[in-house]
Amino acid sequence: MEPIFDLAIHLPRKGSRDLLRSLHRHLRDAIIDGRLQSGVRLPPTRELAAALGISRNTAVAAYDLLISESYIETRQGAGSYVAIPRSRTLTAAARRSEPEHRPDARLNAYWRDQRAPDDGASSGGLRYDFQLGTPDMALIPFSIWQRLSARALRALSRQPLVEPEAHGRPELRAAIAQHVSFTRAVACRAGDVTVTSGAQQAFDLLARTLVAPGGTVVALEDPGYPPMRAAFAAAGARLALIPVDEEGLVVSRLPKETRVVCVTPSHQFPLGMAMSLRRRDELLAFANARKAVVIEDDYDAEFRFGGRALDALQTLDSAGSVIYVGTFSKSLFPALRLGYIVAPPWAHGALAAARRIATGDCAVLAQDTLAAFIAGGHLARHVRKVRRVYAARRQVMEAKFADDLGEWLEPIHGHAGLHLAAFVRGRLNADSIARRARQAGIGIYPLSRFYAGGVTRQGLVFGYGNISGHDIADGLEQLARLLRRGK
Amino acid sequence: MEPIFDLAIHLPRKGSRDLLRSLHRHLRDAIIDGRLQSGVRLPPTRELAAALGISRNTAVAAYDLLISESYIETRQGAGSYVAIPRSRTLTAAARRSEPEHRPDARLNAYWRDQRAPDDGASSGGLRYDFQLGTPDMALIPFSIWQRLSARALRALSRQPLVEPEAHGRPELRAAIAQHVSFTRAVACRAGDVTVTSGAQQAFDLLARTLVAPGGTVVALEDPGYPPMRAAFAAAGARLALIPVDEEGLVVSRLPKETRVVCVTPSHQFPLGMAMSLRRRDELLAFANARKAVVIEDDYDAEFRFGGRALDALQTLDSAGSVIYVGTFSKSLFPALRLGYIVAPPWAHGALAAARRIATGDCAVLAQDTLAAFIAGGHLARHVRKVRRVYAARRQVMEAKFADDLGEWLEPIHGHAGLHLAAFVRGRLNADSIARRARQAGIGIYPLSRFYAGGVTRQGLVFGYGNISGHDIADGLEQLARLLRRGK
Repeated sequence: MEPIFDLAIHLPRKGSRDLLRSLHRHLRDAIIDGRLQSGVRLPPTRELAAALGISRNTAVAAYDLLISESYIETRQGAGSYVAIPRSRTLTAAARRSEPEHRPDARLNAYWRDQRAPDDGASSGGLRYDFQLGTPDMALIPFSIWQRLSARALRALSRQPLVEPEAHGRPELRAAIAQHVSFTRAVACRAGDVTVTSGAQQAFDLLARTLVAPGGTVVALEDPGYPPMRAAFAAAGARLALIPVDEEGLVVSRLPKETRVVCVTPSHQFPLGMAMSLRRRDELLAFANARKAVVIEDDYDAEFRFGGRALDALQTLDSAGSVIYVGTFSKSLFPALRLGYIVAPPWAHGALAAARRIATGDCAVLAQDTLAAFIAGGHLARHVRKVRRVYAARRQVMEAKFADDLGEWLEPIHGHAGLHLAAFVRGRLNADSIARRARQAGIGIYPLSRFYAGGVTRQGLVFGYGNISGHDIADGLEQLARLLRRGK
Repeated sequence: MEPIFDLAIHLPRKGSRDLLRSLHRHLRDAIIDGRLQSGVRLPPTRELAAALGISRNTAVAAYDLLISESYIETRQGAGSYVAIPRSRTLTAAARRSEPEHRPDARLNAYWRDQRAPDDGASSGGLRYDFQLGTPDMALIPFSIWQRLSARALRALSRQPLVEPEAHGRPELRAAIAQHVSFTRAVACRAGDVTVTSGAQQAFDLLARTLVAPGGTVVALEDPGYPPMRAAFAAAGARLALIPVDEEGLVVSRLPKETRVVCVTPSHQFPLGMAMSLRRRDELLAFANARKAVVIEDDYDAEFRFGGRALDALQTLDSAGSVIYVGTFSKSLFPALRLGYIVAPPWAHGALAAARRIATGDCAVLAQDTLAAFIAGGHLARHVRKVRRVYAARRQVMEAKFADDLGEWLEPIHGHAGLHLAAFVRGRLNADSIARRARQAGIGIYPLSRFYAGGVTRQGLVFGYGNISGHDIADGLEQLARLLRRGK
């Protein structure tokens, strides 16, 4: 038979837990990138397993996942083939021989045309990936976490019963209340805190409890954060997309029938500026006058650089209009999936009831470990440490922008966070810059993917949470070279 | 001042993680039980802390939780008091001085009158608690779990990035597919599996993707499982409550416009009988004829006793009508919060999209640990071991029913599970038996709490997942004595 692949597949050592995941991703990325062309026949699993020195089960499972994701398809008795390019109208001929993706009438109309979210190709092929939304895994104090986790598990094992809690584990609620009071000046007690499965669940619970399908106008920043938009859209909100300027959300553009406003006041996502004090006052005045609710998504405010961070918007609220959402995805790691809501009393019952129906309590072991991690001062120490690292990376980035990229890119000033956004000067197209950069192994992210309405500014977003200072410098130099070359 | 309490408060040793939780529960149970009367003034936190030898922070946090749950209220400058009996129209005077619970117009109408779910009093005061839904924590192999968790965390720490997965971690999906194929004969591959935050999230995602608000008729067993009902009600379904008889769901009573049918065919919840083969065939014929969807909740089928368990209903389905929901809450522990859906291809995209919006991926560390636990054969070994323990407890219970309780209670036969239900003979009222039993320190659960429609049969449910064989025998003897005495 033909050579297995003209692919270099580097797998972790045999027996490692990562084997299946790595193989799956290698094959998938190769198909996305075109290294494995559509119509190419893949080797039978037995041969693949032998060639790579892995178990047949692993090979079967990898192919199976790719089939379910429509990257490959099986032809009766004739093997597995790379599927025709994903045109959004095809799905693999799976076990039940459905050759085309037909929106199924058994599904609610909203979900009928949804496809599994495209997680996108991994960084596998990128030399310099300025990825967003992810902190540096190498900085995380896993050994402390491990020790506290083991202790929490022992404590759990000694209890005859672990009862579900409406708002999450009491110790964690108390720890979060202290943490957020101290670090963000958020006024709250343990009783105001609801633990959630990541900030995403916070948005989802808020969308479900605040939105009457078809009737509730929810205002969102544009450009903004797509997963939050998705939560409100799924709940049936009427979305009002509001522009932002150098002071943040343009409050004067809020429709008067707005019932919910979602903002990222510490560090606008994705542009990065802080919401001015003037706009904060305007927004709260609007909310109080119209009995609207403001949702403050404070997603990475701990990572301030250069001076004191602005207090949370919630601190200015004396009328119970602001609901604050926080997360541990950036200060710890996203895979932890713990976030929280700090809400005024009128929302407590509804949030607990909705949470119970959505998932019930979050995983208890993780909650207890996090509570101990916070209460033992480890979170504060960790944030202080990584803040310096990220601040240094920010400086490298800003210096490179000033020295090498000023001709094409105009960075947007911010106080905090793990990414920097820059407008593109002149008539350049950000999406095409990003595409060319990707081909050169540089991962940068066009602003267009964050607009839900029309793309009013061309820009690019550069994360620095998960790339070293050295790679930041090199990567941006290469970008400058690329920009200089290709007009 | 007056003595602190006429209460015995037994707290875990100082510094233990359980301190806050224990104190909170002690006080709360005392209020629920009436040991702390409404209007009684609680000691200031400083004095309580000194008296109990705990930190003031812990005392403050405990009071704070009780305030948020409306058990106590603070009066300006005059201390903390046990609140007036919870009449569902009051909430504590909290920081924003809202003396009464007013449904808030900012909330979606469905949630406006919801209160935080009443977790109910803990077993604290019960000598013999025949609790439902919980396995025996003492049997769980925590040390193996700990070892695998540490290994998974090390592996995670070595990855530069952990990417979110639309359906959950591939290794876990593969492990679940093998597990459920082998143990329940469910036909599936890794690609059909979606990992969820407990079975509750499975119900919620299915409710959201299958129900068009106000339009979709969803049939549920009555008596049934309230949290599943709640998920469909919250999604706006029109609920059709269908009776059950000795063969399970009475399929002939399904309204013809039914689009979704939820069943517990291995072990009807709560009555316990298995769905007959005849009814299974009828149900699938109904579903196929009308393009309806059947959701199979297979919540504790691994714990079979006396012979071979029936295969899952899903195995009879060749038309993609059955969606299977499983959980690890009983075979491992509820605090883990991991469950799964096995769905036909037409539902995959919608489920992944809904899951992404609801929470994103589940906690990765727990998924990886569970995958290793299953792949290493530990789950199978564990289930084999505990099955024998639970089967023995079942036998003790059935013997006691035959010997001592036959005059009042008629047990319902079943093949599997962690609880036994019994009808009450004659004109006795099950709720009042349960109340008297509770006062005598025996926790048994009236069938009435599982009916959404009219209570058509008087009965009681006895769990044996978390009570020893010895206590089962003693507790049931005491129950018999109580029944003999008080008519």
